[in-house]
Amino acid sequence: MLGSTHGTLTTTSRPARVVACGERPGPAVHGMAAPGPEDTDVSGRPLCSPVPDLDRFFRPEAVAVIGASETEGRPNTGITRQLIAWAGRVGARVHPVHPTRTTVFGLPCHASLRDLPEQIDLAVLLVGDPAPVLEELREYKVKFAVVFASGFAETGDEGAAAQARLAAALQGTGIRMLGPNTNLNAFEHFRDDLDGPAIALITQSGHQGRPVFALQELGIRLSHWAPTGNEADLECADFISYFATRPEVGAIAAYIEGLKDGRAFLLAADRAARNKVPVVAVKVGRTETGARTAATHTGKLTGADDVVDAAIRQFGVIRVNGLDELQDTAALLARARPPRATGVAVYSISGGTGAHFADLATAAGLELPALSMARQRQLHQWIPGYLSVANPIDNGGHPVGDWRGRKILDALLSDPSIGILVCPITGPFPPMSDKLAQDLVDAAETTDKLICVVWGSPVGTEAAYRTTLLGSSRVATFRTFANCITAIRAYLDHHRFTTGYRSPFDDAPRRPSPSARKAEPLLRPGEQLSEHAAKQLLRAYGIRVPREQLVTSAAAAVRAAALVGYPIVVKASGPQLAHKSELGLVKIGLTSASQVRDAYRELADIARYEQLPLDGILICQMVGRGVEMAVGITHDRLFGPTVTVGLGGVLVEVLDDTAVRVPPFGEDHARAMIGELRGRALLSGVRGAPPADVDALVETVLRVQRMALELDDGLAELDINPLVVLERGQGAVALDALAFCRP
Amino acid sequence: MLGSTHGTLTTTSRPARVVACGERPGPAVHGMAAPGPEDTDVSGRPLCSPVPDLDRFFRPEAVAVIGASETEGRPNTGITRQLIAWAGRVGARVHPVHPTRTTVFGLPCHASLRDLPEQIDLAVLLVGDPAPVLEELREYKVKFAVVFASGFAETGDEGAAAQARLAAALQGTGIRMLGPNTNLNAFEHFRDDLDGPAIALITQSGHQGRPVFALQELGIRLSHWAPTGNEADLECADFISYFATRPEVGAIAAYIEGLKDGRAFLLAADRAARNKVPVVAVKVGRTETGARTAATHTGKLTGADDVVDAAIRQFGVIRVNGLDELQDTAALLARARPPRATGVAVYSISGGTGAHFADLATAAGLELPALSMARQRQLHQWIPGYLSVANPIDNGGHPVGDWRGRKILDALLSDPSIGILVCPITGPFPPMSDKLAQDLVDAAETTDKLICVVWGSPVGTEAAYRTTLLGSSRVATFRTFANCITAIRAYLDHHRFTTGYRSPFDDAPRRPSPSARKAEPLLRPGEQLSEHAAKQLLRAYGIRVPREQLVTSAAAAVRAAALVGYPIVVKASGPQLAHKSELGLVKIGLTSASQVRDAYRELADIARYEQLPLDGILICQMVGRGVEMAVGITHDRLFGPTVTVGLGGVLVEVLDDTAVRVPPFGEDHARAMIGELRGRALLSGVRGAPPADVDALVETVLRVQRMALELDDGLAELDINPLVVLERGQGAVALDALAFCRP
Repeated sequence: MLGSTHGTLTTTSRPARVVACGERPGPAVHGMAAPGPEDTDVSGRPLCSPVPDLDRFFRPEAVAVIGASETEGRPNTGITRQLIAWAGRVGARVHPVHPTRTTVFGLPCHASLRDLPEQIDLAVLLVGDPAPVLEELREYKVKFAVVFASGFAETGDEGAAAQARLAAALQGTGIRMLGPNTNLNAFEHFRDDLDGPAIALITQSGHQGRPVFALQELGIRLSHWAPTGNEADLECADFISYFATRPEVGAIAAYIEGLKDGRAFLLAADRAARNKVPVVAVKVGRTETGARTAATHTGKLTGADDVVDAAIRQFGVIRVNGLDELQDTAALLARARPPRATGVAVYSISGGTGAHFADLATAAGLELPALSMARQRQLHQWIPGYLSVANPIDNGGHPVGDWRGRKILDALLSDPSIGILVCPITGPFPPMSDKLAQDLVDAAETTDKLICVVWGSPVGTEAAYRTTLLGSSRVATFRTFANCITAIRAYLDHHRFTTGYRSPFDDAPRRPSPSARKAEPLLRPGEQLSEHAAKQLLRAYGIRVPREQLVTSAAAAVRAAALVGYPIVVKASGPQLAHKSELGLVKIGLTSASQVRDAYRELADIARYEQLPLDGILICQMVGRGVEMAVGITHDRLFGPTVTVGLGGVLVEVLDDTAVRVPPFGEDHARAMIGELRGRALLSGVRGAPPADVDALVETVLRVQRMALELDDGLAELDINPLVVLERGQGAVALDALAFCRP
Repeated sequence: MLGSTHGTLTTTSRPARVVACGERPGPAVHGMAAPGPEDTDVSGRPLCSPVPDLDRFFRPEAVAVIGASETEGRPNTGITRQLIAWAGRVGARVHPVHPTRTTVFGLPCHASLRDLPEQIDLAVLLVGDPAPVLEELREYKVKFAVVFASGFAETGDEGAAAQARLAAALQGTGIRMLGPNTNLNAFEHFRDDLDGPAIALITQSGHQGRPVFALQELGIRLSHWAPTGNEADLECADFISYFATRPEVGAIAAYIEGLKDGRAFLLAADRAARNKVPVVAVKVGRTETGARTAATHTGKLTGADDVVDAAIRQFGVIRVNGLDELQDTAALLARARPPRATGVAVYSISGGTGAHFADLATAAGLELPALSMARQRQLHQWIPGYLSVANPIDNGGHPVGDWRGRKILDALLSDPSIGILVCPITGPFPPMSDKLAQDLVDAAETTDKLICVVWGSPVGTEAAYRTTLLGSSRVATFRTFANCITAIRAYLDHHRFTTGYRSPFDDAPRRPSPSARKAEPLLRPGEQLSEHAAKQLLRAYGIRVPREQLVTSAAAAVRAAALVGYPIVVKASGPQLAHKSELGLVKIGLTSASQVRDAYRELADIARYEQLPLDGILICQMVGRGVEMAVGITHDRLFGPTVTVGLGGVLVEVLDDTAVRVPPFGEDHARAMIGELRGRALLSGVRGAPPADVDALVETVLRVQRMALELDDGLAELDINPLVVLERGQGAVALDALAFCRP
């Protein structure tokens, strides 16, 4: 149904790329099995997705243009003309289809699909109502359809229903469709005189891909452009998967307004990560305004931005804000070799430029190692002694104008601590900057290390920029410090991420654990569980809760207290209780039977007065001091269950200091989440407090993840707050929990 | 000493600009009094600084070039040639000075200064050792000297001493000097064919100013460039003051590595704010690396970045990170008229572009008001009904190609909710974008509202960009969404800030209050005060502390407790105590005489055992619950005393959630500081807690500011932590305080 697989592709410069599900890179050709029961995780979500074979989409042999026109002034005429030109370039035969024409631009025109002389790979539908044509295409084993028509999900509910009908028409036909509401971008004129690894582009808006496409005019190669439109069938994830297996693709650049299916996207990103192909994306939807506007554009959900952001980063997708960053970052990642070292050398003809760049670069987390004294002495052979060459390296200007310029570059590039040489040229001064540009381009031919240049002049018509620097595919040229720094960070992050990347899908639980069998009977559809029941749920998953007993009489309370052990906490437990402390339904630090008895009676009175149904009163062990955290499960429309961790107690509300991940994720991510919290230092021990048991917190997060996956059908939301993380080695205890079950 | 004043300058488009100290804008010509005792605040810092008259620096009538050369290949030859060319343009007479030459480039050359034929305005020193020449210049009433030589403060202590000698040589001479370590940038070839308000540029590194200077090639006018170098005399602040009085200057752009004198900079920024002249600055020193590198470049202190950042923002300076932002923001602010409304309309030929821009713009705090239904109906006369025109406005492309394009623009510009129209053109498509660009340029001629265009193509050689858009001084053209949004924010912020700006220097205390007389005797030079003494200091300034008594016997403790009232807190008080709780030196919630007696004995024992000198034991009132905050004074090398406010208790350490201001500041800033805290919601009342007395917190901050100014000579540091902010109307109480006195 999803097209056939094809062999693993290898190139000299790129690692083997995997196309089959669940396989690690290797030299063999893999067949692809249909997804079986083992291909879903315990929540029923797929653990792999096949790579659609889009070869014949981008390089068809026979193309039908349905609704072809040659009448000047009609939109279809321009489209037909462009399709014919494109087909000529890619070597495809074009068959116009139109009920009344006999030729279109000299090509024989066919009255209907059944008159077509050969098997069609790609049918382009230039008709107002594509539904009947799609129905008809079913009969003719067409591989791909492209639907330009708009007026579907982007217009509201009625359009969404029409779009769903289009998608339904494809079911079981083997036809894959691009669109509706797409355009000609896939069939543009790609420059074929550029070489090296290319950018493959995916956009949910044609206009927004235009600047990336225009990179070709700056000498940067583009291999594909997928304008996915409304994504009734083929979606962004399909193209990421496909491009991640293409040897000519060095990086994937995407402009995304919304995701059709969160899991499909993550599986595609996972494939790209396995194949070490970087994905750089603009994702709209940081704000309500952006999300709303995107919905009216291509009718997609943008998703809760913090979840989207976390999810795509989990799989190594590099998110950027602007199309300029998208261009610059994708271009660098497509073309740069893996880093030989992470150190950055900043080399300039001005101390001010070096100081400024170094300031921004270190603020962004780049590492500028101080050069060794020996290296500095070497540099001072060519650079006046009063200039600082520790890094940043200030050459004072003059040395770049003569033979010394190249010597300095070679010395810097030979330094083992340096993996990246950045040369910001903020002001062009041809006697110096022309020679410097040429030296940089020449030096780049002799090294595997990354050379970046920032051409700071706002003019941009200078020959050293247009001809020398842009003429080199080995030098990465930027126009601003910020974009250079963003791209270098992404480059280092990408290689750090993919080196030894282990897919969390490989380790995702496939079958329910014994915990699930214990937990499922505790769920009450549509209800909020009582504290006692929620804690039983936690206990089923091995999450520690205080010793406690649920009692329904004052006498039983006193007996339970003796068993639990003083001091005692007494709390009301009932199915609709939240914020118990504010209602006076919690008494802490009780040290005698009489206190426990009084507390029982007081709580029972309050509950009666407030008409709160209780399942009883909890007699709980008092837990020692620790750091109050919160761990929970929420549900996201795009990605399903998510796991959050944050500071507990009042601080959760006030500071909103939380981190989120989308399952499946490993221990590394559980630990990273904690590292993202602003208040993480609380766990290290402040003001003489002992360090907290972070391992126990990590373990709790992982158990909650397991619960999120296994109980996804029944458990809508969980909030353990506070989870008291005790002194290192002492564990963590869930003092309270709220759990909401699905209807 | 600082040059004479000149009259207030008015233009038709700009408000009157003030040059005299402490004056409000007005039509009259002001004389300028010498600073008197009333011209300093109570800490002795100046409250005004005169504007140096730099007219004859930038437009001299007679220039001496000392060390002039015409020998090819020597650096001084190029400089001499450029100076002669520049003098020709500004109408100055050039007098070369050289001991052995008779002519230089055809001009008569003089052997020494005493041979010069006329009074010199500007002496340019092209000599290796400028010190003896400066000495000699004293005799000849030269107004300005420019020193190119390097090797001063940027090289270390010895150079700094030499630089100090240069500065000393100027004392009392009336000569103002630019440099050392400066260059020719002030004497560049400025385009005189551009009109409208100009950018005046100040840089501490010549190379870093180059891209701003190059803006002239994009049609943006520059009026001045001050390359301040090491600032032995004339500094950045002098040029800000001067430029802020020049009618042709629309905005000041500055590249700053370090400040010579914090107060001088703030007074200059204050003058610019009073005159409504925007100052946009890159300030290096966000990181240690940047600060260190800047020091080796021009030998300046970068200052603690959080303090610098707060201080310059207090006076409305717009800080940006990159030179590209500096260019784009300064260009917009120089040329745009004051906003007619703060609403932004985003208009594009692609729904994707509109969604993307709207997302980033709203995330940055810009306001995109939804257009009225009537306006939307009007727009739908020209824009297909299925496209969203609420804002962002998506025209679908076609309407821009014909007469409808201009109609739409005029309708948007006539909307009273809209002050700014942004049109992002991410992909040029000449049939549409050329017409759109021309319509925008034409519409801009008919409106006072701001029109911004983002030309998103990375190519930048397109005619619609180079000719049409850059050819207009009424349309602000950007290359990235980010820079457009940054500039618009700065534009709105600047006008919000300067509208009704009231200088804090006008309200700064000039004479010590009665509190200072009470407080001064409490200070102990070089010592940390005991808690009791520190609290007396607070009491002197009307800051509330708990009822308490200092006692030195158990019996006195019990008597004191009865007077203070139970429950009681008992604390050790001594001159070297910090972190008393960790040492067990605090007992809270004591409810009986025997508990107080025991506590007294225990604390005395601990202090004896730990050999901690005490001035006694404090018997304190127990204060009700509230929000724990911290308010303090620290000392900054550049700016002197600073006031901080933050969350109190452990949270201060963990979250570092503090805000800082440099005195003098008003109540508005005290309130804004609190608003900057991430944990500010704690003060509004969370989980049923009552709202806290924020007014009392503000009042405490202002009293602490007064203390910081009045006790600046004696008090090095103060930390009130916790300051318990009680329920609204109940005030705030300082529970503990640390105070360090200056040696």
